[in-house]
Amino acid sequence: MIIIMKPSATSAEVDSVVHRIRDLGQDVHLSAGEARTIIGILGDTQRLNRNSFEVMAGVEQALRVSQPFKVASREFQATDTVIDVRGVKIGGEHFVVMAGPCSVESRSQLLETAHAVKEAGAHILRGGAFKPRSSPYSFQGLGEEGLEYLVEAREQTGLPIITEVLGANEVPLVAQYTDILQIGARNMQNYRLLQAVGKVDTPVFLKRGMSSTLQDLLMAAEYILASGNYNVILCERGIRTFTRFTRNTFDINAIPALKQLTHLPVIADPSHGTGKWDLVAAVAKAGLIAGADGLMIEVHPHPAEAWSDGAQSLKPQRFAELMCDLRALAPLAHRLL
Amino acid sequence: MIIIMKPSATSAEVDSVVHRIRDLGQDVHLSAGEARTIIGILGDTQRLNRNSFEVMAGVEQALRVSQPFKVASREFQATDTVIDVRGVKIGGEHFVVMAGPCSVESRSQLLETAHAVKEAGAHILRGGAFKPRSSPYSFQGLGEEGLEYLVEAREQTGLPIITEVLGANEVPLVAQYTDILQIGARNMQNYRLLQAVGKVDTPVFLKRGMSSTLQDLLMAAEYILASGNYNVILCERGIRTFTRFTRNTFDINAIPALKQLTHLPVIADPSHGTGKWDLVAAVAKAGLIAGADGLMIEVHPHPAEAWSDGAQSLKPQRFAELMCDLRALAPLAHRLL
Amino acid sequence: MIIIMKPSATSAEVDSVVHRIRDLGQDVHLSAGEARTIIGILGDTQRLNRNSFEVMAGVEQALRVSQPFKVASREFQATDTVIDVRGVKIGGEHFVVMAGPCSVESRSQLLETAHAVKEAGAHILRGGAFKPRSSPYSFQGLGEEGLEYLVEAREQTGLPIITEVLGANEVPLVAQYTDILQIGARNMQNYRLLQAVGKVDTPVFLKRGMSSTLQDLLMAAEYILASGNYNVILCERGIRTFTRFTRNTFDINAIPALKQLTHLPVIADPSHGTGKWDLVAAVAKAGLIAGADGLMIEVHPHPAEAWSDGAQSLKPQRFAELMCDLRALAPLAHRLL
Amino acid sequence: MIIIMKPSATSAEVDSVVHRIRDLGQDVHLSAGEARTIIGILGDTQRLNRNSFEVMAGVEQALRVSQPFKVASREFQATDTVIDVRGVKIGGEHFVVMAGPCSVESRSQLLETAHAVKEAGAHILRGGAFKPRSSPYSFQGLGEEGLEYLVEAREQTGLPIITEVLGANEVPLVAQYTDILQIGARNMQNYRLLQAVGKVDTPVFLKRGMSSTLQDLLMAAEYILASGNYNVILCERGIRTFTRFTRNTFDINAIPALKQLTHLPVIADPSHGTGKWDLVAAVAKAGLIAGADGLMIEVHPHPAEAWSDGAQSLKPQRFAELMCDLRALAPLAHRLL
Repeated sequence: MIIIMKPSATSAEVDSVVHRIRDLGQDVHLSAGEARTIIGILGDTQRLNRNSFEVMAGVEQALRVSQPFKVASREFQATDTVIDVRGVKIGGEHFVVMAGPCSVESRSQLLETAHAVKEAGAHILRGGAFKPRSSPYSFQGLGEEGLEYLVEAREQTGLPIITEVLGANEVPLVAQYTDILQIGARNMQNYRLLQAVGKVDTPVFLKRGMSSTLQDLLMAAEYILASGNYNVILCERGIRTFTRFTRNTFDINAIPALKQLTHLPVIADPSHGTGKWDLVAAVAKAGLIAGADGLMIEVHPHPAEAWSDGAQSLKPQRFAELMCDLRALAPLAHRLL
Repeated sequence: MIIIMKPSATSAEVDSVVHRIRDLGQDVHLSAGEARTIIGILGDTQRLNRNSFEVMAGVEQALRVSQPFKVASREFQATDTVIDVRGVKIGGEHFVVMAGPCSVESRSQLLETAHAVKEAGAHILRGGAFKPRSSPYSFQGLGEEGLEYLVEAREQTGLPIITEVLGANEVPLVAQYTDILQIGARNMQNYRLLQAVGKVDTPVFLKRGMSSTLQDLLMAAEYILASGNYNVILCERGIRTFTRFTRNTFDINAIPALKQLTHLPVIADPSHGTGKWDLVAAVAKAGLIAGADGLMIEVHPHPAEAWSDGAQSLKPQRFAELMCDLRALAPLAHRLL
Repeated sequence: MIIIMKPSATSAEVDSVVHRIRDLGQDVHLSAGEARTIIGILGDTQRLNRNSFEVMAGVEQALRVSQPFKVASREFQATDTVIDVRGVKIGGEHFVVMAGPCSVESRSQLLETAHAVKEAGAHILRGGAFKPRSSPYSFQGLGEEGLEYLVEAREQTGLPIITEVLGANEVPLVAQYTDILQIGARNMQNYRLLQAVGKVDTPVFLKRGMSSTLQDLLMAAEYILASGNYNVILCERGIRTFTRFTRNTFDINAIPALKQLTHLPVIADPSHGTGKWDLVAAVAKAGLIAGADGLMIEVHPHPAEAWSDGAQSLKPQRFAELMCDLRALAPLAHRLL
Repeated sequence: MIIIMKPSATSAEVDSVVHRIRDLGQDVHLSAGEARTIIGILGDTQRLNRNSFEVMAGVEQALRVSQPFKVASREFQATDTVIDVRGVKIGGEHFVVMAGPCSVESRSQLLETAHAVKEAGAHILRGGAFKPRSSPYSFQGLGEEGLEYLVEAREQTGLPIITEVLGANEVPLVAQYTDILQIGARNMQNYRLLQAVGKVDTPVFLKRGMSSTLQDLLMAAEYILASGNYNVILCERGIRTFTRFTRNTFDINAIPALKQLTHLPVIADPSHGTGKWDLVAAVAKAGLIAGADGLMIEVHPHPAEAWSDGAQSLKPQRFAELMCDLRALAPLAHRLL
């Protein structure tokens, strides 16, 4: 059950409701928005009486959230969550493009790519410093050195940065450098990591697991939200199916479906979603038109020499062409780009 | 291997090449286009010498088609196949919209829908007369009575019609009424049916099987092409995956991938691809932008009372709104609509 | 709803019940077993009153079948269906082994294999005469010539034969030769073919489609049953999943699940279920232990030279070793072999 | 590349080879068995010359491992790995049964179950103290209190214990109590956790991810092996597919396939593999016959009241009956039970 306070509700009235809920043996989540405060009651609320809350001072409405994901649901918050990352808005009417190499391979590779994607119009720079690789014998990323290059690229271009964090222990270190913490598909149900990023303020970019249902994804987001970090961005990056021609099957249905189910921003990743650079532009544009709040695109100056994901990386020139197409399409999707 | 004749090649020169191939123990497929004739050599061509054909009079080039699907491949024919159905063009720069009810339920239901989709701008009327139902105890379609209503709707609206054929025996009957023969997903590898529709002139609309790879789909098309009917239209209608929120997973990757692999037109079916009417418009528009040559959309005047697929059918008003959006998007996809 | 007549019910009493049901506007299916007759009422039976039937003479019980598959369900018939094929029993306590080559390639190949599997203890000879091939340019089977070789092999070995039928038109021809008609996975929802084999007496071996749920399979069986042929054998042959090491994923869960849901015999096909000969024996034995009523195994004297499915075919010697293992295991699965 | 030393090789000879490899800029893994020592060379070994090692003193053979998983592969070690857990042998000719509740819910629930499974013949007690739950609002396990109950159950019954560890940070704590560390399916590619359990001695039970290929699973094992812990046990627990009747699809093919590919023990988990208690026994027995080295079975004294996974838990009596069946089957699978 969630309790929506009146816009005029005082903080004493909010406290009074919270106190009441706790007396009844339930825990709460507070969502204090600009206009009003919403109180989520956690756990089994079958035996609670909605009316008993609605008669309290400052309460506008008490309603039950039918979905297992509570704070993430549209029932909890009807308006889109908009997250501000160093002035770049994610969610709402904004369309955000995150671009950069799969891995940070060297200072020069990153800076070259950063300037190229900045010039083409990207808003956020991506790059992996800690890489989740299938083989323990493969390149595992430059680590903190990679984070330093990302910060240098941010300083030179003004682009906020996003990079992956692999373990709960590394959250403080990575959060010290990055503007957005990425949780990879393989860690989508790594609950200790979800809880750890839930305890910091840094926005979290949560990639859908390769065989996760939409509910699985939203429940993973709920772990972060329930830990106190409300700045969660979801990412559809393709699911694992029987298909062979493409690396994954980009689930275009998930875009409008998630926009119905949740108020959190939803980003499309056509690079992983297809695994083939020559399909990326078509799926990127489809993602925009289907309602995504933005894109994550892998760009590499020399894809053939990339240390990872070369086959799905765009060259800067092709990325620039894609940005032109996206700018032409954005108004028809009622988006600012 | 395929052999491309010069535009100036005489039919005697073509015959001479065909004769030579048959002497070598191979069978051929002739593709006589407006500009030139292309000869496909079937079977194992490893031991054939390309040069021995290129020195023959009238031959421009001999080349090997690496794909297992030959006549369907872009290697065989680089330019888009454009199919003319009573003046409606499918393929090339055209964007075609097929709309109508899942099942023809009654004369009035069909005519009401036909006029509504015509008014909204659809080009072709769909409607099932013979229905492939999961249960032998469910409504199986009106049969020939349904075909007669479709013809009446065509006469009233001028819209060409498309309807499904379930068995090889029924091809002559259904082809007598319809302008396009539809092969459903469950029959995609019903080879006797593929061969039967390959023996008539009527264009064939081939839906991807629910667990078919792109190669499976193109090999099924090849059965029709190899039987002599070159008027094949492919349809992506969603695949079966682990997801639960939607009935199928619309494979948006398949759209640009198929456009790379084949010259045949590719239509998107967001109604089956999602199974939910409120996701149809987003996925329809995504299909257009991703490169589809058209759409197939289920429209029903009263979805709640539909005998089949009500949950995924649009009301006429919503379909008209979608057509408006599509018309605005088409120029950005370099399409005529 | 189904109506179970008393063992002592007369045929006049049965007729009277049938008459009554038809008067109420419903259709019936009669299942006249040795001990008693069961009457299935088809269509929507919500408004029918169970009591109004139970007071009729000769009626023991009227009960509702909750499953969408009626005649196929365990609710309809609690005891196992046992099908007799020239003296070979399929179902019940019997464990049947069908073996032979994927394709009938020549008289000598078939006869050599037939004698080998007979000697090893197989009960039924399999072999494809009409082959459903992915490519129209591949070997499509020997056709009627293959059927003649199968009959000759039956005459020499005494083994009943099973072979696939691809189209409704060919059912009379193939049924003239074969003892069991096989419906392949790709035709599992070819309803015209299901109806055609439902109209003959010959037992039908129905393979699960590669992305069919258990309900899909049972509804396909229901098409045959509802057409009047109660001799239906189901086959689990692996489903299509994301896995790469094996051709399909043999769904071992389906074996005990189907035995719960239906009274029809359930056969395991570990050859297609794995696609690798060196996994066949392990999965074959697992199938027996999990409750299957039999096996279908591909055996070829020279797998490396097989025209189809060589990679999953056992050599006769390995098949004989497997039969030894199966005979040792059968008593522990409470089976006669 | 791996280097197999002669049985008579001295440790100085081994050191000399290791030294040589490191001089060439590669890292090594040493596998010092009873009979001989095997040295794995990690990283890209294309440029290394096998002959240059084979001429060194004490070297029997140098060979390349073609699989991406090196230490986990059968090429690396042909004989089965046998792991000793407080006297219970896992791998080789032994068949081990791990049983117990999904979650440790209370001292009495655990002790009651522990005595019941001990009496029925189980070898190892399972029970979750830290639970990976889909919802942050669900019971998350008793934590360390649960670990203490497990230890008490071990003291009372003599059964070694296995329990899940959720995060790298908790490895030291959990390893202090448990005999085997379980990595759940959702954490199969949590590389930080894999590396953490690779740094301790405690055997690791690694569950296959729900959409992991066999190679994915073996690469995850390789992370643990490459970190130094060679006591890795693999677990097939069902994969996520389109099926609906069962919670997962138990991949029986994976059992013989893994036994071919790796020397590590392979355990079957029919509880998660089916999700339905009434299918567990059939799939458990199938797993034994297909070649599994053991089983993990969920047992609960009162499944209807279980806090998690009640639907797939066996009652003690049914578990005891299953153990009887397994003991009868074991000799036919050439196993000691």
